Amino acid sequence: MSQARQRPSTQRSLAATKRPGPSGEFERIAWIQHLLELPVKDRRTLSNIQVGIGDDAAVLRVNRGNLVWTVDSSIEDVHFKQGWLDARDIGWRSFQAATSDLAAMAATPLAALSALELPKSLTDRTLMQIVQGQNEAAECLRCPIVGGNMASAQKIAITTSVLGQASKPPLRSNAKVGDELWLIGDVGLAAAGLACLMKNSPRRRGSAVDACIAAWRRPKALIEQGQTLRGRAHAAIDISDGLVGDAAHIAESSRVALHIDMDALSETLSPELCRVAERFNRSALSFALYGGEDYALFAAGPGTRRPPAARVIGRVLDGEGVWGFAQKRAPSRLMRGFDHFQGHWVVDADPACN
Amino acid sequence: MSQARQRPSTQRSLAATKRPGPSGEFERIAWIQHLLELPVKDRRTLSNIQVGIGDDAAVLRVNRGNLVWTVDSSIEDVHFKQGWLDARDIGWRSFQAATSDLAAMAATPLAALSALELPKSLTDRTLMQIVQGQNEAAECLRCPIVGGNMASAQKIAITTSVLGQASKPPLRSNAKVGDELWLIGDVGLAAAGLACLMKNSPRRRGSAVDACIAAWRRPKALIEQGQTLRGRAHAAIDISDGLVGDAAHIAESSRVALHIDMDALSETLSPELCRVAERFNRSALSFALYGGEDYALFAAGPGTRRPPAARVIGRVLDGEGVWGFAQKRAPSRLMRGFDHFQGHWVVDADPACN
Repeated sequence: MSQARQRPSTQRSLAATKRPGPSGEFERIAWIQHLLELPVKDRRTLSNIQVGIGDDAAVLRVNRGNLVWTVDSSIEDVHFKQGWLDARDIGWRSFQAATSDLAAMAATPLAALSALELPKSLTDRTLMQIVQGQNEAAECLRCPIVGGNMASAQKIAITTSVLGQASKPPLRSNAKVGDELWLIGDVGLAAAGLACLMKNSPRRRGSAVDACIAAWRRPKALIEQGQTLRGRAHAAIDISDGLVGDAAHIAESSRVALHIDMDALSETLSPELCRVAERFNRSALSFALYGGEDYALFAAGPGTRRPPAARVIGRVLDGEGVWGFAQKRAPSRLMRGFDHFQGHWVVDADPACN
Repeated sequence: MSQARQRPSTQRSLAATKRPGPSGEFERIAWIQHLLELPVKDRRTLSNIQVGIGDDAAVLRVNRGNLVWTVDSSIEDVHFKQGWLDARDIGWRSFQAATSDLAAMAATPLAALSALELPKSLTDRTLMQIVQGQNEAAECLRCPIVGGNMASAQKIAITTSVLGQASKPPLRSNAKVGDELWLIGDVGLAAAGLACLMKNSPRRRGSAVDACIAAWRRPKALIEQGQTLRGRAHAAIDISDGLVGDAAHIAESSRVALHIDMDALSETLSPELCRVAERFNRSALSFALYGGEDYALFAAGPGTRRPPAARVIGRVLDGEGVWGFAQKRAPSRLMRGFDHFQGHWVVDADPACN
């Protein structure tokens, strides 16, 4: 992003903007640079940032070690519709979703780059709210945005690239027979919230509906919880596409079978999820198994090293695939979740235990 | 990107694909992983890659020092139209354009992440050609693709994030009064090529037209030439938006005036550019000054340290802005190039010296 000598007050510039259309690219970059500028106290603590927004590339000073690096896109009418959340939420969600991959690698975030695709009709105010949402998430995760790119497009799309550091990140491919399966965080809430937004139903909202919608609109990357996996988990993944789908990645990569205990999983489900599922006439477990975007963490590791926040929801066995079992049922194989190009949820088994 | 245990032969899988529509997301990721897998010899030399495609994030081992990090998007119907270039070119261009920022920072590329947005109607064959084009560029620049993201969207968009290393990158803000202005590489050819494609004219193509179109379709990030700026250039930028526009960034950031010698610049222009410009009834200089996407390098530094490949096209003076001068003319101020949101080229002065 280009650097401007004058740094206008963002609020003042916005207030002065009467027309609904956008300002020029260079003016916008100057606003964003101003908005994302770190307070002096943070600049001292984050002294690894040598050059931020305003040059051809950001420059970071790092020590010898492992960098952990990921990228994720959040696209209008694919991942969200503008009516479902406000512009700040769009920015927040995109940033948290991208950084969540680092949580699964037990990493400490260093910094992020943000590539924005913006329709020409997007107003300055909406852009500023998107960037504010990104920045709130960046501050919350201590992962400053140090550069990016801006281009026009038909739909809003935010692609966030995040760098972090981790000494020995748990990989998908390292789950071992005999490991426990751990869940950290809630699953199913965000999918239930999304279902409420998509169907605009139940119309009369209660606190359970609000809690589910908030889980979808304002997810949080579990960075600190992820760090408790260091030296404990053999394998880990964040649940973006649904528990079954993401568990399948570990099963395939590690060449093992993951057996999920439906009774144990049911016990982790929040009362809000159960209430909303009931209104939809669906089992809460189906949201938990196949619903994504909660960004909970799912890991495999030895019971002797279980982190405090982890809840045991199954075990690793010889074999392949992801299986569900309950006290009174034979195990049934579960198929994975959302496929972007088939465009549907693959639901093979839906044990209605709840 | 997810990891698949079975690694199918890409060519065989594609040949077996009869239907025009796409495969599933996970099958595609497995193909891409197979296609981008490094040959054993490269895996040895690029031993900094601890984990590539197939986990929540890539893991790179680095030594203590400066990371240089950038991101760039290439979007259908904004940066290109499918009729103007083939799918391999789309992949190649997007990768070279992103990596070019590292050339301007005198950096050595380490690795890249690729975030793909793909219409649901995009065929497997087209996707594979896009990825092959990216991979050709990645191999050419010794900058392997180690991960990414894939999502559906209305239009093709490729967002490439590139990491490199550089000890003391030249910044936009460090040009000094008295410096020479250096040009490395050609300017104007790509814009002339784009003009040919946009107007589908002149219809009878000759070698000059072909050369210009090739410059637009197959640009090359000047990584090696950028490295010759180390310890020599005070400031540098790659010319993506046009010489005048990018020079303006250095002028603003360094708080100096850049005076471009139109006679010297004219002497650098390629005969192919001059022939094509003539057919359009435009001066070749107007393409050179305001046309972007050649990814030449523009730098400022002391004459005593001029790199061998640099051609002197002006000097840094006290003042502000970018100016053009020629032997028989008073200097005139030049305004910057393309603005994504105003959507037009700003051409203030166009000295027809050619």
